[in-house]
Amino acid sequence: MFSKEIYARRRETLLRKMREAGQNGMVLFVGNVEAPAQYKDNCYKWRQDSSWLYFFGIDEPHYAALLDINTGAECIYADDVDIDDIIWMGPQPSVQSRAEGVGVAKSAPYAALEEALKGGRPVHFLPPSRYYNTMELARLMPGAEPSLPLIKAVVSMRLIKEDIEIAALDAACDLGYEMHSIGRDNIKLGIIEQDIVGKMEGFCLEKGWGVSFPTILTQHGETLHNHLHDKIIEPGKLMVIDAGCESNEHYASDFTRTYPTSGKFSTKQREIYQIVADCNELAYSITQPGITYREVHLAVARKMLEGLSALGLVKGDLDEMVAAGIAGLFQPHGLGHNMGLDVHDMEDLGENYVGYDEGQVRAKQLGLGSLRMARKLVPGHVITDEPGIYFIPALIEKFKKEGLGGDFVNYAALEGYYDFGGIRLEDDVLVTAEGARRLGHHRLPIAPDDVEAAMKSC
Amino acid sequence: MFSKEIYARRRETLLRKMREAGQNGMVLFVGNVEAPAQYKDNCYKWRQDSSWLYFFGIDEPHYAALLDINTGAECIYADDVDIDDIIWMGPQPSVQSRAEGVGVAKSAPYAALEEALKGGRPVHFLPPSRYYNTMELARLMPGAEPSLPLIKAVVSMRLIKEDIEIAALDAACDLGYEMHSIGRDNIKLGIIEQDIVGKMEGFCLEKGWGVSFPTILTQHGETLHNHLHDKIIEPGKLMVIDAGCESNEHYASDFTRTYPTSGKFSTKQREIYQIVADCNELAYSITQPGITYREVHLAVARKMLEGLSALGLVKGDLDEMVAAGIAGLFQPHGLGHNMGLDVHDMEDLGENYVGYDEGQVRAKQLGLGSLRMARKLVPGHVITDEPGIYFIPALIEKFKKEGLGGDFVNYAALEGYYDFGGIRLEDDVLVTAEGARRLGHHRLPIAPDDVEAAMKSC
Repeated sequence: MFSKEIYARRRETLLRKMREAGQNGMVLFVGNVEAPAQYKDNCYKWRQDSSWLYFFGIDEPHYAALLDINTGAECIYADDVDIDDIIWMGPQPSVQSRAEGVGVAKSAPYAALEEALKGGRPVHFLPPSRYYNTMELARLMPGAEPSLPLIKAVVSMRLIKEDIEIAALDAACDLGYEMHSIGRDNIKLGIIEQDIVGKMEGFCLEKGWGVSFPTILTQHGETLHNHLHDKIIEPGKLMVIDAGCESNEHYASDFTRTYPTSGKFSTKQREIYQIVADCNELAYSITQPGITYREVHLAVARKMLEGLSALGLVKGDLDEMVAAGIAGLFQPHGLGHNMGLDVHDMEDLGENYVGYDEGQVRAKQLGLGSLRMARKLVPGHVITDEPGIYFIPALIEKFKKEGLGGDFVNYAALEGYYDFGGIRLEDDVLVTAEGARRLGHHRLPIAPDDVEAAMKSC
Repeated sequence: MFSKEIYARRRETLLRKMREAGQNGMVLFVGNVEAPAQYKDNCYKWRQDSSWLYFFGIDEPHYAALLDINTGAECIYADDVDIDDIIWMGPQPSVQSRAEGVGVAKSAPYAALEEALKGGRPVHFLPPSRYYNTMELARLMPGAEPSLPLIKAVVSMRLIKEDIEIAALDAACDLGYEMHSIGRDNIKLGIIEQDIVGKMEGFCLEKGWGVSFPTILTQHGETLHNHLHDKIIEPGKLMVIDAGCESNEHYASDFTRTYPTSGKFSTKQREIYQIVADCNELAYSITQPGITYREVHLAVARKMLEGLSALGLVKGDLDEMVAAGIAGLFQPHGLGHNMGLDVHDMEDLGENYVGYDEGQVRAKQLGLGSLRMARKLVPGHVITDEPGIYFIPALIEKFKKEGLGGDFVNYAALEGYYDFGGIRLEDDVLVTAEGARRLGHHRLPIAPDDVEAAMKSC
């Protein structure tokens, strides 16, 4: 938790932005409650709502707050513990002292919130991120919709990371680096994927809050989000590890590396790997204030098609192929996303509000259409740089059948890649005044020779 | 997952029980969906609903099913994947093939469920265990209440473990044994509690599905449920570790041990520890078909008061003290609970339906009132045996102030225990035809000498 001044300043800025946008009334924040896994008293690991953490810092369930846009008055709503709670949870600081600890002068029981919302003044709230919050907002504000001005004000603040947040992200990335090193060092033929995942996630729980998202560790990298880890590690495969650690301060890291399960890349694997590594490097080299991340995505698409063209997998004019969206056949996702308190930062507030400037229209094309961050870059943006090449038989067959690849795609050559899998390489990048900086104090090996050298254990 | 015959037989039994209870109409099961941690696409680790697992086994989100009590007809409702899903999740078996894999002949798209519920026939469903299921049931069955006959039928089945479940519980307990051994072996002065928790939970993720409940690891054992692990391990404290592993088959284990952080018990610690160990042993020794677990709880309360009496902390007639609920001051929880697919088995269906026989009335007394399992024992019950003694200053002060302890409590002597903490010792026990058997192939050291000997690392 940061100092009370930081939270107070953030809330002041938020209310000022709301007034500047011509808004009045109140801003309502509803924090998370515990999330039942099996029943009410057996919950998943506690995780507070990220916007709540940003403005209030209090890392406890069942808190809410009201801010008055017009007067600046603030009140936190939550219940103090009783003797039963003390038996089960131990003595707890009072709600009032917790409120004061983040610069809020006033507090009241949670039940007082309902009354405070009455009176007909506008009440602005964010979209709910969990089912409970959906229910609770429907109860408190029947029929009301989330506030677009509030979404825009919050996004404008959380999008530009403060120095104290950048330090927290660097620390989370250092944990992510170690988590990935453990993953790489434990790849061994014949073991079950889950053995590696447990070691990686155990480290995150030892040194941080846990994972920043469910670990992807798969020998079927062409399946982008694979959360089952029940396969035996086989020789000659590519193992995609996309994983991140959440620090105890609740900031995320998010890295991807791809390893040859046998310790050495085959020629075919190395060819594709090098294209992805070149794309990752190109994106980083042109990331700087002034360029849009949409342009960076498209530059990467062009580079990727250039590499695939040299291998004879596509053919034709590079710019025409980019325009036709051919890169989407190989990389059906976007180049990257914002990262902060959430690994896909503020995704609950709406992808387009977070990742697109006013006037930027999201494409419908496969790949570009999945780009979560398209904005013009400014210092303080934290984004991922994660190009990938995947050979997805079902998608290739669809392109072939429906003629989606025009004359650009060499389907015959692609048949030799149906069992290839996929490769993704991802770093976390801060946009600086001068250009960009990769987050964390160490970078995971990425050049193919360096990767092979690091895989001594195999 | 078990064989299709097992699921088919369980469903047949369920419908027969419903008919025998004079019910007709349909039984609706709604499985879980993914549980968002931060936003819709960043979820906690997937966990299916336990009753769904018991009757249908399909370990996938967004499934539902209808069983016809009168005709025995069965249908599973879920959606097949489309090309977008295949890109993100890989090719998946069809819903129909999954249904057939658990002996259900018919399947339909999820959206067909709403139509199938129309027609005015009674629809029986279980209480929802998560917020999503609450919302979904309110949508599907506006205003309807969970079915008590269905709750009773399901409880009657899940309460008596089949051989295949006992084997699964033994395996989960073997994982729990290893998890706890890792915990014990990593207690070291000066490190942060979280370091140990991460290693224990990492093991659970390596070899099982994860934890069966959030790990309790605390030097403040008097706080019964403590999920923060941010304290430095200090000399001379008692460390309560209450933790369990969920196997990949989704069966739980749940053990508690208490360790002296310095590796040796002080005299004062050993005296209290021995009372708790004696209570744990007494409970096990009298656990057998025919006795109620309420009686076992009360026998333990008597034994505990006998020990505390010998130390001069209470005084008076033992039976009078038991009747007055004096044990609740030291052990404000019950002796144990049922365990199976859930660590508190079926707690979502209602504690009293699960843990109390018809006619058994739950006490209001502190301690006994928290007893989750009071039933007359029969072979196949799986229960925990977890006595504990805690010195909770706030509770002792309350007893003193309100005169709740009558003349039985030596408050002056208790003042010397305000910084003692707490001790709990827990095993998992199967009721057999002959008596009882502790689950798992090894038992964690529990005698104080054995515990000290096992703590070589300290």
